[in-house]
Amino acid sequence: MKSSSVITLTTDFGLGDPYVGVLKGVILTINPLAVIIDLSHQVKPGGVIHGAAVLREAHPYFPRGAIHVAVVDPGVGGKRRPILVVAKNSLFIGPDNGIFWPIIGTLEDKKIYHLTNRKYFLDPISNTFHGRDIFAPAAAHLSMGVHPAQMGHVINDPVEFDFPAPSQREDILTGQVIRVDHFGNLITNIRGEDLGRLVKRGEPVISVGDLTVEGLQKTYSSVAKGGALALIGSSGFLEISVNLGRACDRAGVDGGELAGRQVNVTKA
Amino acid sequence: MKSSSVITLTTDFGLGDPYVGVLKGVILTINPLAVIIDLSHQVKPGGVIHGAAVLREAHPYFPRGAIHVAVVDPGVGGKRRPILVVAKNSLFIGPDNGIFWPIIGTLEDKKIYHLTNRKYFLDPISNTFHGRDIFAPAAAHLSMGVHPAQMGHVINDPVEFDFPAPSQREDILTGQVIRVDHFGNLITNIRGEDLGRLVKRGEPVISVGDLTVEGLQKTYSSVAKGGALALIGSSGFLEISVNLGRACDRAGVDGGELAGRQVNVTKA
Amino acid sequence: MKSSSVITLTTDFGLGDPYVGVLKGVILTINPLAVIIDLSHQVKPGGVIHGAAVLREAHPYFPRGAIHVAVVDPGVGGKRRPILVVAKNSLFIGPDNGIFWPIIGTLEDKKIYHLTNRKYFLDPISNTFHGRDIFAPAAAHLSMGVHPAQMGHVINDPVEFDFPAPSQREDILTGQVIRVDHFGNLITNIRGEDLGRLVKRGEPVISVGDLTVEGLQKTYSSVAKGGALALIGSSGFLEISVNLGRACDRAGVDGGELAGRQVNVTKA
Repeated sequence: MKSSSVITLTTDFGLGDPYVGVLKGVILTINPLAVIIDLSHQVKPGGVIHGAAVLREAHPYFPRGAIHVAVVDPGVGGKRRPILVVAKNSLFIGPDNGIFWPIIGTLEDKKIYHLTNRKYFLDPISNTFHGRDIFAPAAAHLSMGVHPAQMGHVINDPVEFDFPAPSQREDILTGQVIRVDHFGNLITNIRGEDLGRLVKRGEPVISVGDLTVEGLQKTYSSVAKGGALALIGSSGFLEISVNLGRACDRAGVDGGELAGRQVNVTKA
Repeated sequence: MKSSSVITLTTDFGLGDPYVGVLKGVILTINPLAVIIDLSHQVKPGGVIHGAAVLREAHPYFPRGAIHVAVVDPGVGGKRRPILVVAKNSLFIGPDNGIFWPIIGTLEDKKIYHLTNRKYFLDPISNTFHGRDIFAPAAAHLSMGVHPAQMGHVINDPVEFDFPAPSQREDILTGQVIRVDHFGNLITNIRGEDLGRLVKRGEPVISVGDLTVEGLQKTYSSVAKGGALALIGSSGFLEISVNLGRACDRAGVDGGELAGRQVNVTKA
Repeated sequence: MKSSSVITLTTDFGLGDPYVGVLKGVILTINPLAVIIDLSHQVKPGGVIHGAAVLREAHPYFPRGAIHVAVVDPGVGGKRRPILVVAKNSLFIGPDNGIFWPIIGTLEDKKIYHLTNRKYFLDPISNTFHGRDIFAPAAAHLSMGVHPAQMGHVINDPVEFDFPAPSQREDILTGQVIRVDHFGNLITNIRGEDLGRLVKRGEPVISVGDLTVEGLQKTYSSVAKGGALALIGSSGFLEISVNLGRACDRAGVDGGELAGRQVNVTKA
């Protein structure tokens, strides 16, 4: 599809260094009218799953043709390919390390390109900052109307990624915490519809670490202050929360270890 | 008044999650020419006073017609109304939980609307992310020229908020620390003019926790490095500071507890 | 040179307070079409060296005529002058405290102005927030096409700053850690070309605190996970890193003390 001038950035750069600003300078030098939006620069360093979750959650809310640049790239300068995913509503640019894999499966009319045309990169290309030298300039040229076919060639073998998925065995649905948000909510990979069968038969009982909650609420404030609860969050995933508190502090698991932690759902 | 295309965002979302980016995607989808500015996304979670202080301090510096969106919304999905405050120079959109109350009193030619027209919201509306589903789209439509009266109806009973105000008893003026800034400065709710009477009679003596300072300085560097001082800050409020240091570490009060802490001013 | 409408901001304000948003409001009130980009707001409070390093690294990647505003200004309200540096490709506005000194030496066709014309400042001017009252409005007027000569007069005595530089004695090259980035990389002030002579004669041996590494790698992933390495970073400076880890935690020096720490390079 035709790209728009909206370019989003998702990185593990943090905001203290000049790296994010440099990406924006490179983009504006090529396309002075680009509209650049930060999704997150606090992806866990090298956190491909975390970055993929951010992109999956945010991209549906952007204008058609938005270009989403992801620079979570621990293999920078090695053999991994720079890729462009073109789909009906959105375009994605970043390293071929699986970060787009959970999205690719959901996209309509998609084509994946290996970006190879150095005309659309900076010169020289460093070994350690392809965000600046490859991904940002490629996104900017794309937003100027360059056709993907001029930038590289179609590939059919993008790196697949073992993105954690929930599994069901008898009456137990097992998923994972995908990320812990700023409010301490535990965002899982279990969709509302995955719960359907269990919920029909009775109230679900949800447990993660030391924390167990029963039933699904509509809102955080459905329980008293400090009470734990589960609900289907605004992006459709099961979320374990504490009203006006932090669920992550209640799960009895070290904060840094929560992502990837198992979540079990059964019936009461 | 007529709204401009400048939309500011004040939230307690932090910057690690995709939530702020999603608000921007929603806005740009409706108004591709919106100019979106972050005021702060580090409002204390659920911190209505904190968010109100940020808005009160920043809004006078924006162009006429700027739309200020505030999403500090612990009651999301409950009964609190989404509101729009229209005034001579600025417009405000957010939950009716008192966050605009300290500003409302200072505004000229104001009208307050309960936003009810779902045509200007996303569909469906989640129970947990009204920033995305109600406030951001309403702000974007407003910036496109939709008249407030099309979006809802006028109300006269916005939620009032017991925003802390200084009080005077004989020669002691008592205020509160409203927020601790990035430099560790203690920003109070005492205005320079509140001090007028005391200052005329002699040097004020200002104390908060274990820290006592005498007199008012013009600049931070008016005292030696590491010295404590008080001054009237750039927004007109009394501020307790340490030159090239952190006043919050000197007050002998746990950082998290400083906001809301009592500040006493008397004469020497 | 002619200024563009791109204005970058580098401050020690952090992102929690409304200060950065206020700068943007002031700029947009004067120039509604300004494109405002954050370089970093996490410069160490009062960290002139840190701020200078951020600017030096980022400014070459911005469009010609970009205006770079730096507000790291511990002497605000004192006698230090507000200055504007005009050069062939970039313009810089901020306090005359040395923050532009390491860049000034590298600029072509430069002129330095003392900003004195209050017509281009806010009125009144506070004693504690010249970012808002002087630097932001001056940058905005400049981006609207006001000529520097209308804003002040040329000076030839900007404050010089003893920016740390590497020195060589026999076969030992000694530099400093200038900043520790978000990934824990130690960014030094030793340029790739400074290493030239040593590298020709044999592999360099690089040490900082308890950490010693031999040789120069091309990429982070050239060594095994957790391995320490040195490379010439994307801005041309020697950098000590750990693949998928944090070099700053391996140097045996307290994080806060790393900046300024000595780095020695010798031959094997």
